[in-house]
Amino acid sequence: MPKYPKALASLIQYLKKLPGVGQKTAERFAFQIFSWREEDAKNLSSLLGNLHDSISICNECGCLMEENICRLCDINLRNTDVICVVSSPKDIYPVEEMRSFTGLYHVLGGLLSPIEGIQIEKLRIKALEERIQKYAIQEIILAFDSTIEGDATALYVKKIFQESPIHISRLALGLPMGSSLDYIDGGTLMKAFAGRQPL
Amino acid sequence: MPKYPKALASLIQYLKKLPGVGQKTAERFAFQIFSWREEDAKNLSSLLGNLHDSISICNECGCLMEENICRLCDINLRNTDVICVVSSPKDIYPVEEMRSFTGLYHVLGGLLSPIEGIQIEKLRIKALEERIQKYAIQEIILAFDSTIEGDATALYVKKIFQESPIHISRLALGLPMGSSLDYIDGGTLMKAFAGRQPL
Repeated sequence: MPKYPKALASLIQYLKKLPGVGQKTAERFAFQIFSWREEDAKNLSSLLGNLHDSISICNECGCLMEENICRLCDINLRNTDVICVVSSPKDIYPVEEMRSFTGLYHVLGGLLSPIEGIQIEKLRIKALEERIQKYAIQEIILAFDSTIEGDATALYVKKIFQESPIHISRLALGLPMGSSLDYIDGGTLMKAFAGRQPL
Repeated sequence: MPKYPKALASLIQYLKKLPGVGQKTAERFAFQIFSWREEDAKNLSSLLGNLHDSISICNECGCLMEENICRLCDINLRNTDVICVVSSPKDIYPVEEMRSFTGLYHVLGGLLSPIEGIQIEKLRIKALEERIQKYAIQEIILAFDSTIEGDATALYVKKIFQESPIHISRLALGLPMGSSLDYIDGGTLMKAFAGRQPL
């Protein structure tokens, strides 16, 4: 390991915590930041310093808020018949971008993962049950990643509500738009076959 | 574009300035940073805020320094017969890591690149000439990237010193260690042939 100046070495250690960033990439990032105008580094610094003060998390749905009013929990604007359950606040943005879902959201705060130590108690399941009762919600849409953790969490949520008349669904698995069959992996193709739609 | 909270959107804009980071990656980085403990974000913030204060650049060689003494310019420790010219301070570290070069260093501050607007005047060529005279340096090793910009800068430096008896060399071009011939691009293979070594 080269002997970088201490401040640079610490910066590299922090940058390595970013997803998919290893030693070499972190070094490139650190030198790049050092080559910026000092003003830019200071601006980025103050952004990071104030990040948790300027963004808060809605106690009800769990999404990110700028002011203390959550526009996604406003029952005058949103349809309270249906709730979309996601694992983290960032997953709300692509769904909102569709502009076709007008229901409520609920952030679980993770997906079940014994490896990462995310157990049932860490997820906001209790709060979900309370909200479903409070608003008499009739449909739950599970918008999880299509991973083992997503599958496990979806099954767990389904089990909780299986006695109730609530309709539970999960996002369809299949071919992404514009994809060609010969580039699709076997697992996806199987799911697309199993979930084929009447034409 | 999704409507992120303002602080998060600005953070994404800054992260997009890092090399190879586009919108999607910057978004992942920003959400990851927001998910860190607040303490970690604050630590990273103060590191960035103090970066330019805790690291300075040596007036003589151009490398990064923590205190105001440059250990790479210490003529009691380094061999003043030979100087290794690099484009940026970060290139000094891999050379030092070899532990076989004991000469001086000189950071040019870039490579000639009309596209990026890096002209001769922006490079520390004059300072290089002065140091070569001052220490009566006999050999210059150009350790530039093997790119068009590196080639152009190497030719330019060679032209400056072609009248003087100083020996100028550039890092060898050829096969990387452990590579197999069938994965080597044609350009590299040509250079490896042209630069073949007697066995």
